Amino acid sequence: MRVVIPYTDRDPKSRLAPVLSEPERRAFARVMLGDVVAVVRDAGHEPELLVPAPIDFADADTAVGVDGVPTTVDDRALTPAVDAVLDRLGEGVAEVGIVMADLALATPAALRRLTAVGGEVGIAPGRGGGTNALVVREPSFSVDYHGASYRDHREAAATAGVSVGVVDSMRLATDIDEPADLAEVLLHGDGRARGWLVDAGVELDASGGRVGVRRG
Amino acid sequence: MRVVIPYTDRDPKSRLAPVLSEPERRAFARVMLGDVVAVVRDAGHEPELLVPAPIDFADADTAVGVDGVPTTVDDRALTPAVDAVLDRLGEGVAEVGIVMADLALATPAALRRLTAVGGEVGIAPGRGGGTNALVVREPSFSVDYHGASYRDHREAAATAGVSVGVVDSMRLATDIDEPADLAEVLLHGDGRARGWLVDAGVELDASGGRVGVRRG
Repeated sequence: MRVVIPYTDRDPKSRLAPVLSEPERRAFARVMLGDVVAVVRDAGHEPELLVPAPIDFADADTAVGVDGVPTTVDDRALTPAVDAVLDRLGEGVAEVGIVMADLALATPAALRRLTAVGGEVGIAPGRGGGTNALVVREPSFSVDYHGASYRDHREAAATAGVSVGVVDSMRLATDIDEPADLAEVLLHGDGRARGWLVDAGVELDASGGRVGVRRG
Repeated sequence: MRVVIPYTDRDPKSRLAPVLSEPERRAFARVMLGDVVAVVRDAGHEPELLVPAPIDFADADTAVGVDGVPTTVDDRALTPAVDAVLDRLGEGVAEVGIVMADLALATPAALRRLTAVGGEVGIAPGRGGGTNALVVREPSFSVDYHGASYRDHREAAATAGVSVGVVDSMRLATDIDEPADLAEVLLHGDGRARGWLVDAGVELDASGGRVGVRRG
């Protein structure tokens, strides 16, 4: 299956600004992207990047492992750009995956659970109502990533009579947006993103209720 | 399997104070407890409460469904109290479960995945480094719920040569401590806790990055 990974270099991971500088956030976002690409490949699928403008990965290419990945450029917002990808369904394409680029805890096993969950649409909900990963097999389904997209996708599917499978995965539910999410990468990550954080001096801070992070 | 659910009525769910009053927090904590008890039963196990002092559930009893549940009173802190439960292992008891009382998203299917995960210790990590549920089959294993307990439990197991299985479950990873967690209950809960929140006027607030809650 072709698995499309939307990615943008425009002000990446802005909510991580309390912990990482702008160049660091860009580098970290690329490392996470590389991890997701590797997971898609290791799960037996074909990764594809979906970007709003061509990105020169330059010398980071080799490091993050995204060189040679097929890339679609679409300058529209996330929702119409993904909907254009879904338009491939029915044209000889039976299913397509959409996986967010910041799922630093994703593993091939977790992704395989999503693809096995069944339904005309398989969903991996993200924390806080997001939609972190989709497998779409029904051409009439369209996305809306604004707001509580998980709820909206379920409601839209129910209205259209489209069957939905939901995967119960902490790894796929954990998108990395906020400083506290970095603790999850340190605790559970087994890709390059974890090593990148360690090298950047980001470490667990167990002084509060839930574990957070600080920089050493 | 006996599944022990630690619970206390002392200042329950204090971090929910921005959204719920103290009596509301106590009532909500009890409703979540009732949901967890029901999940344990529906998964085919025997629930048991572990409390620091006897609790009079009084007229809430019927409503939350914990009447008649075997109860152990141990006035020590969580860690030694749970360790005393684990001392039953080897005395004709092959395995024991420890499940937190605030897992309002738990389902029988998620709990069954934990019990099937294998290892001398099965762990369901919680967000922020916690340990939300355990199945312990090895008498030498002991708990430490302070700080980043998931990391500490894994390290202790590795040091002692105890094998560990980890379940990848968003439902078991989501303990309900903070206002943002209430959004997860509204989005994914299918027990009484969700209905309680709706009745209390807590609703999704999709105005920010991740969805939060507000009171209507």
